[in-house]
Amino acid sequence: MIQKLISKIEKTHAPIVVGLDPMLNYIPKQIQEKAFKEYGETLKGAGEAIWQYNKEIIDHVYDLIPAVKPQIAMYEQFGIEGLIAFKKTVDYCKEKDLVVIGDVKRGDIGSTSAAYAVGHLGKVQVGSQKFAGFDEDFATVNPYLGTDGIKPFIDVCKEEKKGIFVLVKTSNPSSGEFQDRLIDGRPLYEIVGEHVAAWGEECMGDKYSYVGAVVGATYPEQGKILRKIMPKAFILVPGYGAQGGKGKDLVHFFNEDGLGAIVNSSRGIIAAWKQEKYAKYGEAAFAEASRAAVEDMIADIDGALKNR
Amino acid sequence: MIQKLISKIEKTHAPIVVGLDPMLNYIPKQIQEKAFKEYGETLKGAGEAIWQYNKEIIDHVYDLIPAVKPQIAMYEQFGIEGLIAFKKTVDYCKEKDLVVIGDVKRGDIGSTSAAYAVGHLGKVQVGSQKFAGFDEDFATVNPYLGTDGIKPFIDVCKEEKKGIFVLVKTSNPSSGEFQDRLIDGRPLYEIVGEHVAAWGEECMGDKYSYVGAVVGATYPEQGKILRKIMPKAFILVPGYGAQGGKGKDLVHFFNEDGLGAIVNSSRGIIAAWKQEKYAKYGEAAFAEASRAAVEDMIADIDGALKNR
Repeated sequence: MIQKLISKIEKTHAPIVVGLDPMLNYIPKQIQEKAFKEYGETLKGAGEAIWQYNKEIIDHVYDLIPAVKPQIAMYEQFGIEGLIAFKKTVDYCKEKDLVVIGDVKRGDIGSTSAAYAVGHLGKVQVGSQKFAGFDEDFATVNPYLGTDGIKPFIDVCKEEKKGIFVLVKTSNPSSGEFQDRLIDGRPLYEIVGEHVAAWGEECMGDKYSYVGAVVGATYPEQGKILRKIMPKAFILVPGYGAQGGKGKDLVHFFNEDGLGAIVNSSRGIIAAWKQEKYAKYGEAAFAEASRAAVEDMIADIDGALKNR
Repeated sequence: MIQKLISKIEKTHAPIVVGLDPMLNYIPKQIQEKAFKEYGETLKGAGEAIWQYNKEIIDHVYDLIPAVKPQIAMYEQFGIEGLIAFKKTVDYCKEKDLVVIGDVKRGDIGSTSAAYAVGHLGKVQVGSQKFAGFDEDFATVNPYLGTDGIKPFIDVCKEEKKGIFVLVKTSNPSSGEFQDRLIDGRPLYEIVGEHVAAWGEECMGDKYSYVGAVVGATYPEQGKILRKIMPKAFILVPGYGAQGGKGKDLVHFFNEDGLGAIVNSSRGIIAAWKQEKYAKYGEAAFAEASRAAVEDMIADIDGALKNR
């Protein structure tokens, strides 16, 4: 799957991923009203609104981008009905040949971590049959529990040719509370980064590993160091746009080959119609606003990479 | 909810929690066959088998215990159908007046963490209505992202009078890889423990906080230290039984008042019928074996607390 991600990045010249993190207040009124008319102001109505909103955005951007990253929390908050919308979204993106990164940030130990790995990336055995539960291509994973939490994901990745992105240095303001604490003079995120590099050795594609890392766009200096610590890890970079990261801050997340990173924007793309910059599209043409925002993001990042 | 947990512990004399972490190979053949006959060897069939198995165990143990801890990964691996079984289990346990600790180990930032908090402990707004998604009483939370990840849970806990258990020192062999690393001469888990104590000050019940901690039974010495660092935090203690912890190892997780900890056993209870010790019950009476295992666990822990 890392090979597919790379080939799609090369084809689109867009090392970007669109975060499908719907909030009801991003969703234009016409979509909400239609869904509520059909299913009432219910969890099912909310799930339907999210799904229709996602679908229209995907239809308008899928040809420009290699990958999407649905954030499962935004679906899980609506219970089962929200997760049905998540699953529909994953399936539809795969139909459109997009690489799907499930931003699930799961992490547990032993058989429990294996269950998450199977549910999101693999297949579960039921009697004599096997079934995929959510079937994303990549999943994000939390490293706090150590190798016991990561290894079961790696086992499934090897079997299914899928991948993970391990949280290393997250984009939020308080990420330093634990991640920046010094251990033998070096921050915890560097130690985690070294583990990511070691875990990744076990399952390599041609040039990059199936085991990637999450490093926030909001920490470019740390990204520069982590790039060197994990030379063969793809870095998933959240925090572009709405959280403050800009194209020029991101060049050091990439290797010399122009690869090695994929930059996420969520709100900046899916709620573009709410920004002054894209207001001319209006609420009805929200998905065209998203397309324009994708084009601008590609130009920003591609431009920064060419000028480095 | 921490008050309810405490009053139920005092009433049952059982500072224990039964982990509802079903694996298909724990489930007696008669239940699997019935479910597969009705729904086929499908995800729905698996979900039905899990639900019937859980229900029979709950019916046999609910009067002895204060709380249950369903591990969501074991349900999530079966996709939507598994999560429907999770939700049914949560609802049924609440009907039986059990405190439900959702072992979800979620953790993200800002609005995303808020979405998890709302989905598992709170209510989500849909138009003019509000709905609970999964509606557990407590949830386990991963601290790697710092206060940004925890605060949204605390906000929901205050509103709903619910609680969280933050991972501090987990029970698995590799938990030390990051958690034991020394920062200014002290292990990371102590630093996290200090944060748990500080976060907990914000939302106190009478004597204990709504913000608890997870510390593995397999690390009794660390538990002793963490007990002192977080005097007002309830400690959820996994790793009893199958993972190696014993009653006498656990006394230091408790405060002098005999409270402050709740010990989990999963496999040791729900798959008791597979152990030699409880083999006399046979496969058909698996839930009676579970009841006997609960009684033995209460005696072990209560005995250890009395003899300290």
